[in-house]
Amino acid sequence: MDTVDIPLCLDSGNPKALEAALKVYQGKPLMNSVTGEEHSLETILPLVKEYGAAVIGLVIDDNGIPDDPNKRVAIAYKIIERAEALGIPLEDIVIDCLVQPVGADARAALVTIETIRKLRSKLPVNLTVGASNSSFGLPDRDLLNSAFMAIAIASGATCAIADVARVRPLVLVIDLLMGCDKYARRYIEAYKQRQKQ
Amino acid sequence: MDTVDIPLCLDSGNPKALEAALKVYQGKPLMNSVTGEEHSLETILPLVKEYGAAVIGLVIDDNGIPDDPNKRVAIAYKIIERAEALGIPLEDIVIDCLVQPVGADARAALVTIETIRKLRSKLPVNLTVGASNSSFGLPDRDLLNSAFMAIAIASGATCAIADVARVRPLVLVIDLLMGCDKYARRYIEAYKQRQKQ
Repeated sequence: MDTVDIPLCLDSGNPKALEAALKVYQGKPLMNSVTGEEHSLETILPLVKEYGAAVIGLVIDDNGIPDDPNKRVAIAYKIIERAEALGIPLEDIVIDCLVQPVGADARAALVTIETIRKLRSKLPVNLTVGASNSSFGLPDRDLLNSAFMAIAIASGATCAIADVARVRPLVLVIDLLMGCDKYARRYIEAYKQRQKQ
Repeated sequence: MDTVDIPLCLDSGNPKALEAALKVYQGKPLMNSVTGEEHSLETILPLVKEYGAAVIGLVIDDNGIPDDPNKRVAIAYKIIERAEALGIPLEDIVIDCLVQPVGADARAALVTIETIRKLRSKLPVNLTVGASNSSFGLPDRDLLNSAFMAIAIASGATCAIADVARVRPLVLVIDLLMGCDKYARRYIEAYKQRQKQ
């Protein structure tokens, strides 16, 4: 809290650790995470509500991570509905569409991209994804991660989990391609700054 | 024809030059190009049919290049319908969805991507796009071109216009992400080959 002026993400699989952090946190944190599993919904969502936090919802349920995009979308809906029933607004929920290594499962990235597309076409909910998970175990990861992130953002992801300092040039490129940087002003400015360094 | 064992693309705005090339060409060339303009449809398509060539159709008509994806799609349909009326099969038509520089028009890439998506969702037609046009006039073009190509291919483009030697690692990455490279075999093999060089 002393070091950065943006909200922290509280990341723990232990609900008691999350609650202890919530008690001392100043401001509105992002909690990582709730899943579609019953015990998670029952434990985590009341904490999110009580402390006015935002929360990451993982598309995983008691049967694990589905490899069918429709099932991932259904879990996302379940989390959102349970959260909204407690009075947690949609803008405080970030769905993590989850991506597994493409080296182990050729369809891994495709399932994630399809989940992102389907959710984006239906709901104005923030969507996150780990930018580097897909390349786990493979060589030459940077190009793979960059291409995945470009595709994920163009498909509707809004807040990738990534090393900000490292991915900034790429994010500016994608912003430019997606029509979010008129006359390429930020892109050119960032390029000039890099040239000075 | 002596130098490479893949079909050539005959590229000229002059129909007489195209016909002269068709007369001497051995095999099935790709002709660049026909547009949705009446004079082009009337001149080029009969040549395509007569010589059994394939043809690139540009989504441009007598009013220029539309900035509305639906209008680009409509021109593509017009070209395809006129070609099919002459007996040219769909697999011999490649639609160029056209991309203009994002530095001049922030929506330029978005319009192209949307055109690709709409055509891909409707027709099994090959779709091309110039991989480097979007970055024209901007610095640091490689990252921009790579991100554009990743998004374009993930959206449904099948044959980008690009420097094959230069984009091969990227194309292998996109293949892998799109589920076309089981166990990342080609990706890893290409990586090993590059390490040896």
